[in-house]
Amino acid sequence: MPPKAKALPSKGEKEPMKARAALLAAALTLPSAAQTDEGMWTFDNLPAQQLKERYNFVPTQEWIDHARLASVRFNDGGSGAFVSANGLVVTNHHVALGQLQKMSTKENDYVKAGFFARRPNEERPCPDLELNVLVSMEDVSARVLGAVKADAPEKTQNEQRKAEMSRIEKESTEKTKFRSDVVELYQGGEYWLYRYKKHTDIRLVMAPEAQAAFYGGDPDNFTYPRFDLDMAFFRVYEDGKPLKPKDYFRWSKDGAKDGELVFVTGHPGSTDRLNTISQLEYERDLVLPTRLKHLAVLRKAYYAYSAQSPEKARRAKDRIFGVENAIKALTGEHEGLLDAKLMAKKAADEKAFQDQVKGRADIAAGGSWDRISGVQGELARRHKQLSYRKIDGSKLAGFANTLVRYVIEVEKPNDKRWEEFRDSALESLKFRLFSPAPIYPDLEEHMLAALFQESIDELGKEDAYVKAAIGDKDPKDLANALVDGTTLADPEVRKKLVAGGRKAVEASKDPLIVWARAIDPQYRELRKWYEDDVQSVEAIEGNKIAKARFALYGKSTYPDATFTLRLSFGRVAGYELNTTTVPYKTTFYGLYDRSASFDNKPPFDLTAMLIERKGDVDLATPLNFVTTNDIIGGNSGSPVLNSAGEYVGLIFDGNIQSLVGRYAYTEDKARAVAVHSSGILEGLRKVYRMYSLADELIAP
Amino acid sequence: MPPKAKALPSKGEKEPMKARAALLAAALTLPSAAQTDEGMWTFDNLPAQQLKERYNFVPTQEWIDHARLASVRFNDGGSGAFVSANGLVVTNHHVALGQLQKMSTKENDYVKAGFFARRPNEERPCPDLELNVLVSMEDVSARVLGAVKADAPEKTQNEQRKAEMSRIEKESTEKTKFRSDVVELYQGGEYWLYRYKKHTDIRLVMAPEAQAAFYGGDPDNFTYPRFDLDMAFFRVYEDGKPLKPKDYFRWSKDGAKDGELVFVTGHPGSTDRLNTISQLEYERDLVLPTRLKHLAVLRKAYYAYSAQSPEKARRAKDRIFGVENAIKALTGEHEGLLDAKLMAKKAADEKAFQDQVKGRADIAAGGSWDRISGVQGELARRHKQLSYRKIDGSKLAGFANTLVRYVIEVEKPNDKRWEEFRDSALESLKFRLFSPAPIYPDLEEHMLAALFQESIDELGKEDAYVKAAIGDKDPKDLANALVDGTTLADPEVRKKLVAGGRKAVEASKDPLIVWARAIDPQYRELRKWYEDDVQSVEAIEGNKIAKARFALYGKSTYPDATFTLRLSFGRVAGYELNTTTVPYKTTFYGLYDRSASFDNKPPFDLTAMLIERKGDVDLATPLNFVTTNDIIGGNSGSPVLNSAGEYVGLIFDGNIQSLVGRYAYTEDKARAVAVHSSGILEGLRKVYRMYSLADELIAP
Repeated sequence: MPPKAKALPSKGEKEPMKARAALLAAALTLPSAAQTDEGMWTFDNLPAQQLKERYNFVPTQEWIDHARLASVRFNDGGSGAFVSANGLVVTNHHVALGQLQKMSTKENDYVKAGFFARRPNEERPCPDLELNVLVSMEDVSARVLGAVKADAPEKTQNEQRKAEMSRIEKESTEKTKFRSDVVELYQGGEYWLYRYKKHTDIRLVMAPEAQAAFYGGDPDNFTYPRFDLDMAFFRVYEDGKPLKPKDYFRWSKDGAKDGELVFVTGHPGSTDRLNTISQLEYERDLVLPTRLKHLAVLRKAYYAYSAQSPEKARRAKDRIFGVENAIKALTGEHEGLLDAKLMAKKAADEKAFQDQVKGRADIAAGGSWDRISGVQGELARRHKQLSYRKIDGSKLAGFANTLVRYVIEVEKPNDKRWEEFRDSALESLKFRLFSPAPIYPDLEEHMLAALFQESIDELGKEDAYVKAAIGDKDPKDLANALVDGTTLADPEVRKKLVAGGRKAVEASKDPLIVWARAIDPQYRELRKWYEDDVQSVEAIEGNKIAKARFALYGKSTYPDATFTLRLSFGRVAGYELNTTTVPYKTTFYGLYDRSASFDNKPPFDLTAMLIERKGDVDLATPLNFVTTNDIIGGNSGSPVLNSAGEYVGLIFDGNIQSLVGRYAYTEDKARAVAVHSSGILEGLRKVYRMYSLADELIAP
Repeated sequence: MPPKAKALPSKGEKEPMKARAALLAAALTLPSAAQTDEGMWTFDNLPAQQLKERYNFVPTQEWIDHARLASVRFNDGGSGAFVSANGLVVTNHHVALGQLQKMSTKENDYVKAGFFARRPNEERPCPDLELNVLVSMEDVSARVLGAVKADAPEKTQNEQRKAEMSRIEKESTEKTKFRSDVVELYQGGEYWLYRYKKHTDIRLVMAPEAQAAFYGGDPDNFTYPRFDLDMAFFRVYEDGKPLKPKDYFRWSKDGAKDGELVFVTGHPGSTDRLNTISQLEYERDLVLPTRLKHLAVLRKAYYAYSAQSPEKARRAKDRIFGVENAIKALTGEHEGLLDAKLMAKKAADEKAFQDQVKGRADIAAGGSWDRISGVQGELARRHKQLSYRKIDGSKLAGFANTLVRYVIEVEKPNDKRWEEFRDSALESLKFRLFSPAPIYPDLEEHMLAALFQESIDELGKEDAYVKAAIGDKDPKDLANALVDGTTLADPEVRKKLVAGGRKAVEASKDPLIVWARAIDPQYRELRKWYEDDVQSVEAIEGNKIAKARFALYGKSTYPDATFTLRLSFGRVAGYELNTTTVPYKTTFYGLYDRSASFDNKPPFDLTAMLIERKGDVDLATPLNFVTTNDIIGGNSGSPVLNSAGEYVGLIFDGNIQSLVGRYAYTEDKARAVAVHSSGILEGLRKVYRMYSLADELIAP
């Protein structure tokens, strides 16, 4: 299944340095788009020509607006959709997993046992789930780019650009009360103000057992044929009552059919399709190998912790899912970049684009590729620091870092702050920072020790960060002291520190705050260098390349993914693989076959309910299916719609052949994988006996 | 599924020129065999050490003899096994297909509808099926090689060798009445006299519908997971009564289990594992591309014929199966040779072997590789003639050629004849030549026209063969005239010509006999050149290389496959593919899933009986499974045995990853695919209601 969106921060801190992968540049993808189902299209620029030519379909503005307003962003990294007049939202179980984990205890493990609210009063509030609905879009390119003075130094231009973005967001938030994000598209070619209706009173309605949702476990992840009920239902409340959304998707009577035109709305996290060759090479040779190495460290640590007791295994379950998922996804992406043919095609496209640019005296992007290439060399030089001068895998350390940065940043004028501390972002940030979700000190300590050891191993004892963060201490002793001594696990403590501001944080003797203060200078130095010397160049040169692209091709393509709402089109279609045909759908028969084929051994074992109620299920009911839609991580939970705008499926994965999609769309074997709408109904009724929930979905 | 054995002639004529692929040379495969389940072992030299070390299994001589005597060779290209005290033999449906096709008519299509003898008197005699059981094996290397005078010219040595083989066969046949074949093993390193009990009164007992046996059709061929009831039952009769074999395999109560040690006995057709690099290169660059091109011509012609009417489609069904099967198999094999890694490994092994040979003054094989390489150049020079100066796809033309050659050859002393006309081979040859199986003149005419056109296209009008075979005639007119005028479709006519001898054939005005007489000189010239200039060198140098191998390694390995009885060992085991785990078995659930997944569209549609009796079937019953056993085409129909010698499965295919096995065994993903013994029973009882047949299998 797709990793959750990488572009969206989820642990109370933004990490703009990681977002750079999706940040820049340009190549020549346009001519092919018309002949395939390629594209993650923004709602202001849907591919009318392709839809007409390939599928003879012309959506009305009403169809488009309805699709937008019934689509939901899950702010911890996924997508979803309104599917009833009473605010019911459906997404993937693996998108809900974080909330389920936070709501579970040793005694009530909703991840393992599932959750089933059979009456309204059994619906349970989520600790820190924020949903967004995109209510308006406004082109603010002229204003953002107009604020940049071309004669200023590059780092100043970068500051001017970002300051203007923050001003626009602040004005909009104050004026409309909507969450307001200025979104950079086309690598700086356009800037748009996206306003979101924000929902934070979200209650869990139903989630199946993890084993039914994630049937086949890590081996079957990114695999098709597949047999997963990867679904979860929430209800949006407003003023203590279920929301009555004007726009929601009607449930299709028959669900997806072979060959049918279908649409996916959702929030693809990030793609790197327009990256330059030098950026891709940096990605291939340094970023991805390093991340995979780091993920292997995390995996080892989580498994060692899990092995200690069933309760510890329960606590680490969503983390292990995330790590395994990321390893499989990044390995697939890395294989894409290691494919000499793909890189040769990319290089040829870039060369052809450059040649066209050379022929046009009015386009000033000739030197941009070289400058971006130069920046990659700088990044390579500090690659180890960028990768290891941080902690990634401890919630408490994340809180401590956010708190230390928070109180410093909010003292600055709004438009001088790092973007994650702008006024417009603060409400959502505090929602996460003050989350009542449980913290497991033993898990925190275990991970901190492993991560400290990793920093020592990778950076050496003489590194400034290592000296400040660890010094001569034994990683285990240090982790033990920090976790034992901190009170940050209590959300009230975190609230008080924010309320007390810089003074309170600087006076704090909490050992984790002391630790976070000690490493703050290194972080600031590295981030400043990154913004001034890397981001500024990539933004300015990227903008030139984007302009060149617009000048040569008009706005005939779509921007790289940015965890903002997109529409993709495609068709329900099997494919050829390993000398045979892979069917467009699977059925419940296949679920029982796979289980029996492995003698019901994990991870292919059936849940008690699937065994007990097998006789009730119509085994020929479609369970999962595949489409050619262009999706990526962040699309998890996206609705699949037919041309009538009806709900026919629930995206939950891409097959392994789709992972190269970060760099290039392919239609031959790459497929989006979805739960079939009929399979959802059959599961709700026959396996879970959630009759009223099923009835709500198909209510006239 | 594996192609039927290529080494065995099946159309009334041997084609020794095709057999050369399996004929020669040597490389260094031995050191690896001990660490894997590699090997198609002869029964005189089973891998005792590997079995002990890997599986702690030591078969008794009784176990070995029993396995040999209960194994059956299907002489039209497959394997089988005795499975009851009343002479019941089981093999694959696709091995039985030729007989089924010959027994079917427009009104009674047993291929489509299946065949079900519910009482003894309903068992139907097969038109021309010969089964063999290997009753004894005798090393005659000293006698064969002793007859060769080293100071004679090479072509004389070759004649001496073959003459001695024919003398041994004749003596044995006369003395024992058994079918007696001298088998060349280890590329001329050893010669063995194999004596077979021959059975020709074979009656069909049961065959499922082709759609159940070959479920998934050509797309699923060579694919796993798989859901095929690829089985057929025959009964051997002797003196009009069911044979009571002393040796037959007991049916296992539970069938194959995950991880279990299993054995396969059977008749792998041919492998090229010991070929030299120069031979493999000739194979890769000329033989396989040409054969694939020719198969494409055949395919096109068969489909054009089939499209004309349902009855024509019925008539061509087994031919299309054969062509599609061969195309998929050869494509897989060709990909193996195109794999640079595999070829580099082969080359390194050959080099290491040569280096060892150089270090030993007592081994005289130093120049053998160069001489064999030189011969490949000669073969390449006449490659087009070898490939296209013949007709391959017309039964009538095959009969005509055999008759013309027959009457000339049998006038010669026995030891001077081509091997297929030696006395020891004549009985089996006549059994096929006089077969009452139906001939379809319209199909014959259609194919002859296509094949004539192909010869013109490939050889040109000036070629001596084309001039003699076609002249200036239009291919369609010629085919029409030949088929319209001939009476060879009547087996009595063929019998009379044989009885009349050379005089009768030379006097015949039958247009096909006239045609065959006209092309006979070209065939004789080409064959003589091949035997004198190619076969002789490959045999003599191959023998030197084989001696070198024995000298360096002893008899620690197995010979290339020669459609003679072999035993392979392995274990029931799934594998990793496309990022997930492929299960060791499938179940009936999966059959119904695959059908529903394709909306029951062909070739994934279910038969009427599978639909109607679904409710009777225990869907969790194992249907197919995979093992690591080393098999290849010709093993179709082989029994899978557990260590107790019980029948646990029926080999019917190799997965696509196993096709490279012609050149090298791999254990990672290559698997033999079998019907599970429990699936066979469940199918017989619940789907076909063949209760007494099922009871016979499990009779105590």
